[in-house]
Amino acid sequence: MNHQDLIQACKSEWVEYTEHSFVQQLALGELAHSSFLHYLKQDFLFLKQYTRAYALAIYKARTLAEMRMALPSVQALLDSEIAHHVAYCGEWGVSEAEMEAEPEAFGTVAYTRFVLDSGMSGDVIDLYAALAPCSIGYAVIGAQLLASNSTVFEGNPYANWIKMYGGEEFQEGIERSIKQLDVLLNDIELNSQRGQRLCHIFKTATRMEVAFWQQGLDDA
Amino acid sequence: MNHQDLIQACKSEWVEYTEHSFVQQLALGELAHSSFLHYLKQDFLFLKQYTRAYALAIYKARTLAEMRMALPSVQALLDSEIAHHVAYCGEWGVSEAEMEAEPEAFGTVAYTRFVLDSGMSGDVIDLYAALAPCSIGYAVIGAQLLASNSTVFEGNPYANWIKMYGGEEFQEGIERSIKQLDVLLNDIELNSQRGQRLCHIFKTATRMEVAFWQQGLDDA
Amino acid sequence: MNHQDLIQACKSEWVEYTEHSFVQQLALGELAHSSFLHYLKQDFLFLKQYTRAYALAIYKARTLAEMRMALPSVQALLDSEIAHHVAYCGEWGVSEAEMEAEPEAFGTVAYTRFVLDSGMSGDVIDLYAALAPCSIGYAVIGAQLLASNSTVFEGNPYANWIKMYGGEEFQEGIERSIKQLDVLLNDIELNSQRGQRLCHIFKTATRMEVAFWQQGLDDA
Amino acid sequence: MNHQDLIQACKSEWVEYTEHSFVQQLALGELAHSSFLHYLKQDFLFLKQYTRAYALAIYKARTLAEMRMALPSVQALLDSEIAHHVAYCGEWGVSEAEMEAEPEAFGTVAYTRFVLDSGMSGDVIDLYAALAPCSIGYAVIGAQLLASNSTVFEGNPYANWIKMYGGEEFQEGIERSIKQLDVLLNDIELNSQRGQRLCHIFKTATRMEVAFWQQGLDDA
Repeated sequence: MNHQDLIQACKSEWVEYTEHSFVQQLALGELAHSSFLHYLKQDFLFLKQYTRAYALAIYKARTLAEMRMALPSVQALLDSEIAHHVAYCGEWGVSEAEMEAEPEAFGTVAYTRFVLDSGMSGDVIDLYAALAPCSIGYAVIGAQLLASNSTVFEGNPYANWIKMYGGEEFQEGIERSIKQLDVLLNDIELNSQRGQRLCHIFKTATRMEVAFWQQGLDDA
Repeated sequence: MNHQDLIQACKSEWVEYTEHSFVQQLALGELAHSSFLHYLKQDFLFLKQYTRAYALAIYKARTLAEMRMALPSVQALLDSEIAHHVAYCGEWGVSEAEMEAEPEAFGTVAYTRFVLDSGMSGDVIDLYAALAPCSIGYAVIGAQLLASNSTVFEGNPYANWIKMYGGEEFQEGIERSIKQLDVLLNDIELNSQRGQRLCHIFKTATRMEVAFWQQGLDDA
Repeated sequence: MNHQDLIQACKSEWVEYTEHSFVQQLALGELAHSSFLHYLKQDFLFLKQYTRAYALAIYKARTLAEMRMALPSVQALLDSEIAHHVAYCGEWGVSEAEMEAEPEAFGTVAYTRFVLDSGMSGDVIDLYAALAPCSIGYAVIGAQLLASNSTVFEGNPYANWIKMYGGEEFQEGIERSIKQLDVLLNDIELNSQRGQRLCHIFKTATRMEVAFWQQGLDDA
Repeated sequence: MNHQDLIQACKSEWVEYTEHSFVQQLALGELAHSSFLHYLKQDFLFLKQYTRAYALAIYKARTLAEMRMALPSVQALLDSEIAHHVAYCGEWGVSEAEMEAEPEAFGTVAYTRFVLDSGMSGDVIDLYAALAPCSIGYAVIGAQLLASNSTVFEGNPYANWIKMYGGEEFQEGIERSIKQLDVLLNDIELNSQRGQRLCHIFKTATRMEVAFWQQGLDDA
C-alpha cells in the first residue's frame, strides 16, 4: 500500500479537513482576526508536541537510516521553525510568553496526543500514519489555495501563510516525507489487518485535524 | 501535597466540570435521549482507553505494592465494568457492535490520550494525577446529585445512573483510590516544580472532561 | 508464520538455552545449591519485570480481546505466582526481604529490559515475540526433563522444580499462550521485513535467556 | 541533590567501573587486540541505542528548553559521532557492515535497555540519571588516564582513545551535561523517595557499565 490508500480510505473526512471553512475563509481573507490569532497560539502549542512526536520516531527507529529520516524534522522544528513561528506571531502582536501561557484547546490536545499515543502503542509505521494527515494535508491545502482562482492575495492578511505552505520549499519537503512514508508502507497489504489499522489511524487523525480547524472558528 | 491541592489549583474548571449543564439536565431528567445515547457510546470507547491507562500504571509501578494498587481497576474493567456498561447500553437499545463501530469523538480522544501521554512521558504519579479528575469527579457528581433536593428520581430515565455513581460501592472504591493518591503525593511539595506540574496536568485533564460532557450536548 | 518459524530461525541458540548446563545439572541433582539460590533470587526480581511486560501488553492491545488475552498473566503473577515463588524460596531459606534487597544481575537486566524495550519500541506482536522464549522455553525444558530417562527424581532437591514446569497445569497454560501467539503471527509473512524482525527479536531474547542461566553458574 | 550525590551513593561500584581492568590494560597498551575489537563493535551497537535514549529525552522533555538540551546529543551522534566511530573502526580493520551484523552482547543489551526502560517508566530525570554513568564515567576515565604517570602513550595502540576522551572537547561537552543534570536534580532532596530512587538507577546503570567492560575481556 501507499499514502494514496490512506487518503482513499477516508475520502469524505479528507475533504472536510482540506477544504474546511477555516481554510476557505482564510483564502478569501475573510477569516476573523480573532480566529487566526487563536489558531496561531494553538499552533505554537501544537509544534511542541509535534517535535516530541518526531523525537519519538527516532526512539522507535529500527535502523540508523530510519533515525536519520526523522532527525531533520526535529532539528528544523527546534532550530528554526518554532522560532519562525514565534517571529511571525510577533508580527501579529502575539508574544512567545503569551503563547506559553495559553491553555491547550481540546482540538490541539486531541490531535497531538492521538499521534503520540498511536506511535507509542504501535510501532514506527503507526506513528508516521498518524503524523501524515498533518504533513500531507498542509501541503495539499497550500497547493490548492495557491493554485485556486478564487484565492485572494491582494489585501489578504493571510496571503503569506498561503505562500508559505504552497511554496516550493514546503512542498518539496513534504514530497520527500511522502516518498519515505511510501517506502515504509510498501511491505504492507492494504487489506491485511495491519493495513486496515493504518487506515483507521490516518482517518482518526484526519478527524482530529478537522476539530483543530473548527476550534479556531468556535473558540475565538 | 494531597488531592485537595490539585482541585484547589483549578477551582473554576472543577466547578465547570462537576456542575456541567449535561449533568444538571441529567439530574432533572431533562437531558435529550440522543445526548445520553451519544454519551453511552463514547463512554464505551472511553473505558477501553481507561483500561489501557491502568495497565500503564502497572507497567510504571516501582514496587510490587504499586503494581497491586492498579491491578483491581484493570481487572474490574475487563472482568465486569465493561460488560455492565454493555448490558446497561443494551437496555437503551445500543448494541456492543454499534459501539465498536462508533468513531471516537474528539472529546473522548482528547481526554483519554492526554491521560495516556501524561503517564507515558512522566512517571506513575503524573499518570495518577491525569486519571484523578475522572475518578474523583464522578464520585463528586454522584454524591452531589444523590444528596441534592433538586434531583428528580421519579420518572427520571437517568435515575439509575445517579444511584450508581452516588451509591456506596462506587463511593467507597473512589475513597480508597483517593487515599492511595494522597500517599503518592505526600512526598511532594505543592510549590515545587514537580507539584506545580501535577497541578497543571490535573487542570488540563479536568478541562478535557468538560469537553467530554460538552460533546454530548453538541454532537448528539 | 507461526511460533515454530521463530524457533527454527535460531536453532543453535535455542538448543544452547533449553539444554543449558544449568538445566542439565539441575536434572541430575548436581547443581550447586549456591547456583540454585542465586537463580531463585534473580527469578524473583525477574518476575516483577515480567509482570510489567504483561501489563505493557494490555496497554499495547488493540482490541478488548487482546486486552483480555494478557490479563490472566498479570493477574496470576500478582495474585499467586509471585507469592508461590516467595513461599518456595522460603523453603530454601531465602526470605522476600532478602530477595528485594538483592541487586539485579546483568543477565536479569539484559533479558527483562530487552523484552520491555522491544515491546515499547515495536508493537504488541514484537512484545509477544520477545516474551515467547521464556514461556515456550520453560515449557520445553520442563517437558524434556520430565520425559528424560536420565533425569534423577529420587533425592534430587530440584525435583519439584522439574515437576512444576513439566506438569500439566504449566504445560496447558503455555499451550494456550502459543495458540494466541500463532493467531497474532498468522497475518505475517516469515520472509517479509516484519517477519525477519520478529525472528531477530526472538533470537536476541533467547540469547539473553542463555546469559540468565549462565549467571547462575558464574556468579553464585 | 547533585551529580556528586549519585556517585557517592555507589562509591565502590563507581571505582570498579572507572578503574576497571579493561581500562587499566588499555592505559598500559596491554589490552588484547581481540578485546579492543570486541569493544569497538559493541560500542557501535551501543551508540545506536544511546541515540534512541537521547531522542527519548526530547520526547520526555517538559519545555522547549529541555528539548533543546537533548537535541545536540542526538544531532552529534547521527551527524558525526557514529561516522567517526565507523572511520576509527575502519582503521582497525572493522567495517560498518561487520558491526551491523554483530550480535549485541548481553552487557551491551543490559546497559542500553536498562537506560531506555528507566527513562520510559520514569520521567526525564530518571532517564538522565541512567545516562549519567556513561557520560560522566567516560570523562572521568579519560581525564584520569591522561593525567596518570603510569599511562603509556608511546607505542600504545590505544593512545588516541585516551587522548580523545581525556581531551578538551570531550571534557567540556561533559561539563556542560553535568551542569544541566545538576539543574534538574536541584529541586530534589537526596533523602526523599525520589532522591533514593535516582541513586538506585545510577548505581544499577554503573553496574551494567562494569558488565560492559568485563565482556570485552571475557568474550573476545
